Amino acid sequence: MSMVEHHCCRPPDHSPLLTTQAVLNSRLRCIGCGATPDAAAQNFRCTACGELLEFFFPGWTSASPPFDVTTLKAMWLERRQSTGKELASLDQSGVWRFRELLPHIPVEHVITLREGNTPLYSLPRCARAAGVDHLQAKHQGMNPTASFKDTGMTVAASSARQDGFRWVACASTGNTSASMAAYAARGDMRSLVLIPEGKISWGKLSQSLDYGALTCQLRTDFDGCVRILNELVRERPIYLLNSVNPYRIEGQKTSAIELLEQLGWETPDHIILPGGNLGNSSAIGKALLEMQELKLVSRLPKLSIIQAEGANPFYRSVREFNGEKLEPMIAETRASAIRIGNPASWKKALRVLRATGGEVEQVTEFEIASAKAEIGSDGIGCEPASAVTLAGLKKLRRRGFIRAGDSVVLILTGHLLKDPDFTIRFHRGELFDAASSAAGQEMKSLQRAPVVIDADLGAVIAALNAADRNS
Amino acid sequence: MSMVEHHCCRPPDHSPLLTTQAVLNSRLRCIGCGATPDAAAQNFRCTACGELLEFFFPGWTSASPPFDVTTLKAMWLERRQSTGKELASLDQSGVWRFRELLPHIPVEHVITLREGNTPLYSLPRCARAAGVDHLQAKHQGMNPTASFKDTGMTVAASSARQDGFRWVACASTGNTSASMAAYAARGDMRSLVLIPEGKISWGKLSQSLDYGALTCQLRTDFDGCVRILNELVRERPIYLLNSVNPYRIEGQKTSAIELLEQLGWETPDHIILPGGNLGNSSAIGKALLEMQELKLVSRLPKLSIIQAEGANPFYRSVREFNGEKLEPMIAETRASAIRIGNPASWKKALRVLRATGGEVEQVTEFEIASAKAEIGSDGIGCEPASAVTLAGLKKLRRRGFIRAGDSVVLILTGHLLKDPDFTIRFHRGELFDAASSAAGQEMKSLQRAPVVIDADLGAVIAALNAADRNS
Repeated sequence: MSMVEHHCCRPPDHSPLLTTQAVLNSRLRCIGCGATPDAAAQNFRCTACGELLEFFFPGWTSASPPFDVTTLKAMWLERRQSTGKELASLDQSGVWRFRELLPHIPVEHVITLREGNTPLYSLPRCARAAGVDHLQAKHQGMNPTASFKDTGMTVAASSARQDGFRWVACASTGNTSASMAAYAARGDMRSLVLIPEGKISWGKLSQSLDYGALTCQLRTDFDGCVRILNELVRERPIYLLNSVNPYRIEGQKTSAIELLEQLGWETPDHIILPGGNLGNSSAIGKALLEMQELKLVSRLPKLSIIQAEGANPFYRSVREFNGEKLEPMIAETRASAIRIGNPASWKKALRVLRATGGEVEQVTEFEIASAKAEIGSDGIGCEPASAVTLAGLKKLRRRGFIRAGDSVVLILTGHLLKDPDFTIRFHRGELFDAASSAAGQEMKSLQRAPVVIDADLGAVIAALNAADRNS
Repeated sequence: MSMVEHHCCRPPDHSPLLTTQAVLNSRLRCIGCGATPDAAAQNFRCTACGELLEFFFPGWTSASPPFDVTTLKAMWLERRQSTGKELASLDQSGVWRFRELLPHIPVEHVITLREGNTPLYSLPRCARAAGVDHLQAKHQGMNPTASFKDTGMTVAASSARQDGFRWVACASTGNTSASMAAYAARGDMRSLVLIPEGKISWGKLSQSLDYGALTCQLRTDFDGCVRILNELVRERPIYLLNSVNPYRIEGQKTSAIELLEQLGWETPDHIILPGGNLGNSSAIGKALLEMQELKLVSRLPKLSIIQAEGANPFYRSVREFNGEKLEPMIAETRASAIRIGNPASWKKALRVLRATGGEVEQVTEFEIASAKAEIGSDGIGCEPASAVTLAGLKKLRRRGFIRAGDSVVLILTGHLLKDPDFTIRFHRGELFDAASSAAGQEMKSLQRAPVVIDADLGAVIAALNAADRNS
C-alpha cells in the first residue's frame, strides 16, 4: 500500500507561511487506537485498526499555550487588510488567515479561491418564530462554490498538490464534487467523480462539469462507487478527497474560529448544525475544543446536531444506543445534502457532542421546508439541509434545552441556488398535501406561488391589496 | 405626480455614516437637459425632458479635491478590520465601506447583506487561450444573491426605506428580482415582481419566491409589464427598483473602486464588461471617471463592452450610427442576463465608452459557450452572460486593439449556479450541432459529458487513461 506523505512537520525556517509566529508541528493520530503514524495510507484510515485519523498538535498544552492570544487575534484581524504582498492570497482567504492552527503547507502549494470570510447575519423573523431573543446565522453557502465544502477543500487539495498528485477523486453527487472540481482545476490537477448510474442529479453536477471533472457513472450503487474508489487509490497515484481525509476537517475548523472572531470572541450559548456525514460537526467541534485549549475563548458553546427524520442514524445512535454503535440505514429526505445513511465521521461528532454538552434532534420534511421559507423571509437563502437547524432550534426550544434568553448561532451550509427545484416545488404546493397536513394552514401561509392576472392596473392593485391583507 | 425625496444633502453633523470625513453633498442631474431637480419623480426620469437622472457631487473639483487621497485609501482599508462597533455592518459591506463616494443615507436606514468584497482571480488558462500575459477576473457573482445586482440594490433599497416605503417593485424575471426580493425582506418591506405570463423562468425565480416576493404574471409582454409598473408607481406609494433608479448606479460604482484597491491603485490597461441593459457599464465607468477626478488614480483604463450577436443594439448603435441613435430590437440569446433589446442606460454607457477610449464588440452563441467552459477550466464558475467578456477579449486581441502585454480585467457578473441548465446542456452536446460547426472539434474538446461504465476497476482506469491522453 502506497502512503501519502504529509509535510506538516517542517521546521520554521523553511516556512513562508508564517510571518510572526513559529510553525507548530502537527501530527496524525488514530481516533480509535491512538497510533500516530508518520504518514497516512491512501485511504486515510489507520493501518492498525481501520479507524479515522485526525490531526493533533503535540506542542499545545493548556498550561503553557504556544501563542500569545492577544497577538494572535490582532494578527488574524490585521491580515484582512493585506493587499499586494507575497502572502496576500493567503491573508485574504478566510481559511488560511488562521494558518497557525492548520497543518503546515508551503505557500507555493496552496490552492485558494478566497474561501471563508462568510457573513454572520441576524435573523429577526426566525428569532420571533423560534421564541429566542438572540439568533444569528453563519452562512457558509457564501463560499465560492456555494457550500461549506470549500473551506476544507482548499486545505486537502493543497495537500494533494504538495504531494505531487496529478489526479484527485471522490464519490459524491453533490457539494463535495463541485468543490473538488473547482479546486483541482485551480491547482492544475485533474479530478474524478464516481457516481452510481441512474442516480445522477444533473443540477448538482453542473458545477463539476463546468470545472472540468471526469465524471464516471458506474453500474452499481453508492457503496459500490466507494468500494471502487478505495481500490483505485491503492492501485494508482490518485489522491482521495472524500470526507475521511483529515485535511478537510482542519480547513472546515476555521469557520468556527472566524465565527468567534465575528462575535468578538464571546462564546454563544448554542451552535446548531445540520448532521449528514458529520464531518462539519466534527470540524466545528474540534475548533471549539482547540480554541478553549489555547485560551482563545474562555468557555464552550453547546454544539447540537439536527438530522432529517428519514436520515437519522446519528440521532438514533445517541438516543437509542447511547452512542455505543451506529446502525446504517437507507436514508431518504428531500434535503439531499444530508441524505446519508452511514455517516463516516460519527465517532468524531459524538466526541464533540459529549464534550460540549450539546443535543441531537430530528425534524420532519415539512418542518424543514417551513424553516427554509422562514429563513428566506429574513432575506437569507439556503439549501434545504441548512434549514434543519432552524427546525431543530424550535424543537430544542420547546423542550426547554434552549431558553428564550440564550444566544444561538445556526450554521447554514449551502446556498439557495444549490437546489432551486425544491424551492419552486414548495411554493407551487407540490411537495406536500396541505389538506392532509395538520400544519396545512401554516404551510399555506408560507407559500408564495405567482398569481396570473390581466395586464391591467386595477388587477395589479387588487393583488397588492390582497397581499397586504395577508401579511 | 408624487416625488421621491432624496436625502443626500444632509449636513455633516447629522451623519452617523462618516467617522473622519465630511459628507459631500450629492445632487440629481438630468443627463439630457442638465436640470438639477431637488427630488426625483417616482419613475426616476427628468420631468422636463424624460431622460435618465444621475447623481453628481457639486463639491468635487479636480483643482481642489475634497479628500486627502492617502487618508481616504487608508481609511477604506482599515474598515476591513471593523468588528463589533456601531458602524461595523457598514464597514464590512464592500459597498458602504466606500460611503464617502455615495449619496448619504443614515446608518439606521441602510439594508446590507455584506455585499461586495468580491474576489479578483487570475485566469492562467484563459490568458493563454486569449493570447495575453496579464488576465484577471473580478467575480461579482460572489455577491449574496450571486449577481452584481446586490451592490446597487443595497443603496436603492436603503433609499426606499429611508423614504418610508412599504412596497418596492421591478419588472424582471432574473437577477434584479432576486436581489430586490432579498433586500426588501431584509429591510422589512414587501416586494412586487411583474413578469409576462408564459415567459417565466422558474429557475431564475426560485430566489424571489424564497425571499417572499409577490410575483404577478401579467397577460402581456415585457414592455407591457414596464408600462403597468410605471402607471402603478404614479398611483400608489411603491418604490421603483428598475435600473433607471440612479441609486442603483451609485452602489454598482463601488465594485470599480474595490477593484482598483485590489490592484494597489494601479490602473489596468483594459476593463471588459458584458453589455445588456448597460447599467453596470455606466456605473463602472462613472466610478473610473470620478476616481480620476478625485486623483485616486492617475489614468483611466479603456472600458470595452461586449454584446451577444442576437442582442446587440448598443454594438449597432456605435458601429452603424456613431452613437447618434439606438434602434431597439427583439433580443435573442441563451445568455439570458443580457437578452435585452432596448437598453435603458445606453446613453450613459456611450459616454463612458467615449471618455475611456474603449471599444464595442459582439460575439456568437458558440463563442459564449466556449468561453464559459474555458473560464470553468480555471476553476471559476460564471453564468453565460459573464463569459461574453472572454469571448470579446479574444476578438479585441485578434483585432490588435488589445496587445499581448496589456493588463486586462474581465468583469464576471453572475455565478454559475444562476443557470445550471445551460452548463448541463452544453456538456451533453445539446446546445450546438458539432458536425455542422466550423469550430466543432474545438467545442468537442471542451465538452465533458459523463461516461457510463461497469463497476469495475479496469473500466475506471481505462476511462482515466483516455482522459489523460486527451488532456
